[in-house]
Amino acid sequence: MWSGASMMLSRFTIPRVFSTDLCGTEGLFANKTLEITNDVLASYKNQGGFDLLGRSIDQIRSSKQVSAAMTTCQDLNLDGLVIVGGVTSNSDAAQLAETLVQKNCKTKVVGVPVSLNGDLKNQFVETTVGFDTVCKVNSQLISNVCLDAISAGKYYYFVRLMGRKASHVALECALQSHPNMLIMGEEVALSKLTLMEVINKICDGVQARAELGKHHGVLLIPEGLIESIPEMYALIQEISILHNNNVPVTEIPTQLSPWAAALFQFLPPFIRRELLLHQESDNSAQLSQIDTEQLLAHLVEAEMIKRTKEGRYKGKKFSSVCHFFGYQARGSLPSNFDCDYAYVLGHISLHMIAAGLTGYMATVANLKDPVHKWRCAAAPLTAMMSVRRHLRGPGAIPIGKPAIHPSPIDLKGKAYELLREKASSFLLDDFYRTPGGIQFEGPGSDAKPITLTIEDQDYMGDIEMLKLYLDKVKTIVKPGCSRDTLKAAISSMISVTHVLTVMSHPLNAELPLYHFN
Amino acid sequence: MWSGASMMLSRFTIPRVFSTDLCGTEGLFANKTLEITNDVLASYKNQGGFDLLGRSIDQIRSSKQVSAAMTTCQDLNLDGLVIVGGVTSNSDAAQLAETLVQKNCKTKVVGVPVSLNGDLKNQFVETTVGFDTVCKVNSQLISNVCLDAISAGKYYYFVRLMGRKASHVALECALQSHPNMLIMGEEVALSKLTLMEVINKICDGVQARAELGKHHGVLLIPEGLIESIPEMYALIQEISILHNNNVPVTEIPTQLSPWAAALFQFLPPFIRRELLLHQESDNSAQLSQIDTEQLLAHLVEAEMIKRTKEGRYKGKKFSSVCHFFGYQARGSLPSNFDCDYAYVLGHISLHMIAAGLTGYMATVANLKDPVHKWRCAAAPLTAMMSVRRHLRGPGAIPIGKPAIHPSPIDLKGKAYELLREKASSFLLDDFYRTPGGIQFEGPGSDAKPITLTIEDQDYMGDIEMLKLYLDKVKTIVKPGCSRDTLKAAISSMISVTHVLTVMSHPLNAELPLYHFN
Repeated sequence: MWSGASMMLSRFTIPRVFSTDLCGTEGLFANKTLEITNDVLASYKNQGGFDLLGRSIDQIRSSKQVSAAMTTCQDLNLDGLVIVGGVTSNSDAAQLAETLVQKNCKTKVVGVPVSLNGDLKNQFVETTVGFDTVCKVNSQLISNVCLDAISAGKYYYFVRLMGRKASHVALECALQSHPNMLIMGEEVALSKLTLMEVINKICDGVQARAELGKHHGVLLIPEGLIESIPEMYALIQEISILHNNNVPVTEIPTQLSPWAAALFQFLPPFIRRELLLHQESDNSAQLSQIDTEQLLAHLVEAEMIKRTKEGRYKGKKFSSVCHFFGYQARGSLPSNFDCDYAYVLGHISLHMIAAGLTGYMATVANLKDPVHKWRCAAAPLTAMMSVRRHLRGPGAIPIGKPAIHPSPIDLKGKAYELLREKASSFLLDDFYRTPGGIQFEGPGSDAKPITLTIEDQDYMGDIEMLKLYLDKVKTIVKPGCSRDTLKAAISSMISVTHVLTVMSHPLNAELPLYHFN
Repeated sequence: MWSGASMMLSRFTIPRVFSTDLCGTEGLFANKTLEITNDVLASYKNQGGFDLLGRSIDQIRSSKQVSAAMTTCQDLNLDGLVIVGGVTSNSDAAQLAETLVQKNCKTKVVGVPVSLNGDLKNQFVETTVGFDTVCKVNSQLISNVCLDAISAGKYYYFVRLMGRKASHVALECALQSHPNMLIMGEEVALSKLTLMEVINKICDGVQARAELGKHHGVLLIPEGLIESIPEMYALIQEISILHNNNVPVTEIPTQLSPWAAALFQFLPPFIRRELLLHQESDNSAQLSQIDTEQLLAHLVEAEMIKRTKEGRYKGKKFSSVCHFFGYQARGSLPSNFDCDYAYVLGHISLHMIAAGLTGYMATVANLKDPVHKWRCAAAPLTAMMSVRRHLRGPGAIPIGKPAIHPSPIDLKGKAYELLREKASSFLLDDFYRTPGGIQFEGPGSDAKPITLTIEDQDYMGDIEMLKLYLDKVKTIVKPGCSRDTLKAAISSMISVTHVLTVMSHPLNAELPLYHFN
């Protein structure tokens, strides 16, 4: 086992030399190259940002893009291409790998799980590089506004966090900083809460706090929340379909279904404008451009005024300050954990290409343990992929392409359970926690994401445990055992095999997992 | 000399018990008290936030407020009252001290320089507690968006920073993080730049970068910038006067002078609305509520479109993301420097009260040196005060009350000189610097504000040096020296004394400086 920690360099505060302009995937299509030498890398090691290779369209998807990427691989006679990214980039990596195999191109395609959203998470991938850093920076800022809120005693902070559809960033930040409320998209979607039900839930919290004499608070809102509210989701999908049909933005409001149009008109003008904005590379709405926190603050204020008039609320006037903690957490100096994790993944990628694997992702299990207990592997990308039929609005277009889908928060998981246990204390007790900035030395410098450390994710360990049970069966049912025992064992195993066959996806049955230990 | 560093406790991440609700100055008026024991203080030491004593109106100014404060002091039989704050709180402290002396109240009033703005700065005060922390948190975030900007290569970040009228926070952050541009209020005021001249300056920068193929950048804007633009200042003053005359907000636009009304109509609606908001405790506009960064981004975009149409700009479409880094930097875990500084100031305050001083501020000189070289003193508040006649708009109301005024950036100082030297490199070279989060141990944990370390502020040292020169004169002109030498010495000293008498303010001639060394 190779340890990333031993290669950790101390952080530089000297500026790096920015001379490259490689334009990310567009640079790949255009065969813009840079030989990454130790000298080039020296000022980028253990630093944030994507500026060494640049970012542009973040896609290798259309047949034109795929064939441009292939041409570059062939021209450069590349042994391997390492694609760094989240769910969409790794879906693209799988598709590219397949195409290159079909076209007899020798370049192996390997994916590395890197994304601030934390939504690339499955039986192989425990977390992504960047998630820890982004959550730590955000938690630092959230705890700052918590102390600012309690100092002034008169504002509610509505803080929206990046993280796309899933609420992983918001959940992790809530566990790190203990804000008063967190409205999770997954909870809202499960309970099918309407927009006004969400607003009432927040207002009830504000009211309960006012009864304790508290007129301040901090509320976390994942950016994906807006899509989790059923009627908002339907509206966003209708707009998306009209977009895809090239309806001009100005005409979209007039072509909505009657109920979507009614909701659209109910929303404040700034939200209407934002909903009509162009869409992201994966056809979802530009969540980072929708000021959900302002929408909620606006509606909560209206509801509190209504409750005051009706005599149901007797506290001080509700007053809010809105924040979007997004861009300012990206590009941060990475945490020690993220540096270690990234070093190990890079090392695995090299071994994968040397072993001739293509269409695989570098993975590390047991991340919550010390580095010497980490277990490296290569997992087939197809094993993470599935085909979903989305009903995107009343137009009902089935989308049938295999893809790695963002994993939502597991509402039966330990992290969510912990949050639920604490929710009422968080709401009322101002149990704020101040983690401070990311530390590189001393106490706290080895902290890992809380969600990672409390989730039970030892996949490889579980496989070992299964092997132990299978061996135990062999030991019990060996020549000399009774006929009844043998019969019972066969009957049980037939049933187990049957259940597992049904449960297993045909796609991932064939591809083995590669271990590097 | 007592060293603050030796008392530094390690930082807690365990939540403190928030049970007090003392409401700041309003609590003082209402005689709400808390005995600060070691137990109470345990979870507040070396932490951020003002929640132990709370914040409310931040004023002890009106005769009602002053007499309420005095009643509390008398009821509690207080030996001393320590007032913690910036320019306005310490002006109030001076007034309160004077009143208490007049009324024969035994309570001594002592001020402590604490403010994130850094604008309480004079011959006695090198910096305020909190400035270092706020600048470090902001610089961390600015460097994150710098790396995000260069990674994406397509946005300009317009970042507004707190700090009230002066640009100290913005200057310090620029020296720490090396953004592409900083528009300083003091520069704009000195050159009397109009709003469109400021816009053109930014657009020229955008254009120069585009010629190098760079379509991203980061621009810092101090919140006080808006007041530094002459025509905006005049408009804000007119609105302020109408406010003070109790003109309803809706009628203010109709009562402006013709040219102020014309400017008001030119501004985008969101800025118009913000300008009409209510004012802060010192009668200035609520600078933190004016989205100057959005105003500038809006006007820069319009100007870049104009330049594109006229064929003067040939780069990619200008695109911006706006940020206000304000609240999220307050309440942070303080830097080691701020902890040390605050401990020492607290210690001095105790000695001042024990020595029976009132109307004085605790000060520490030589802060840029190691703690054992720090020099503690008590400086008379009146020595920092002056009387200014403000022409607040065409109404011309002279305001004649002595006050400590915010110090602007010294445009002849070393910090500004350094920025000017680097300005062209910052603009074009993407010389970004990543200081990271505040460190409590290891490299960087002892960093102090850059502006503090490069300014030459050894006031006490200079006084010692002066004494040396005076002694030298005595040594030269002793019995036995020639008549001519004596005559020359007397004549020189008469002239020196005369000049100094004229230069010295009558107010601070009487009060001596107290040293604790």
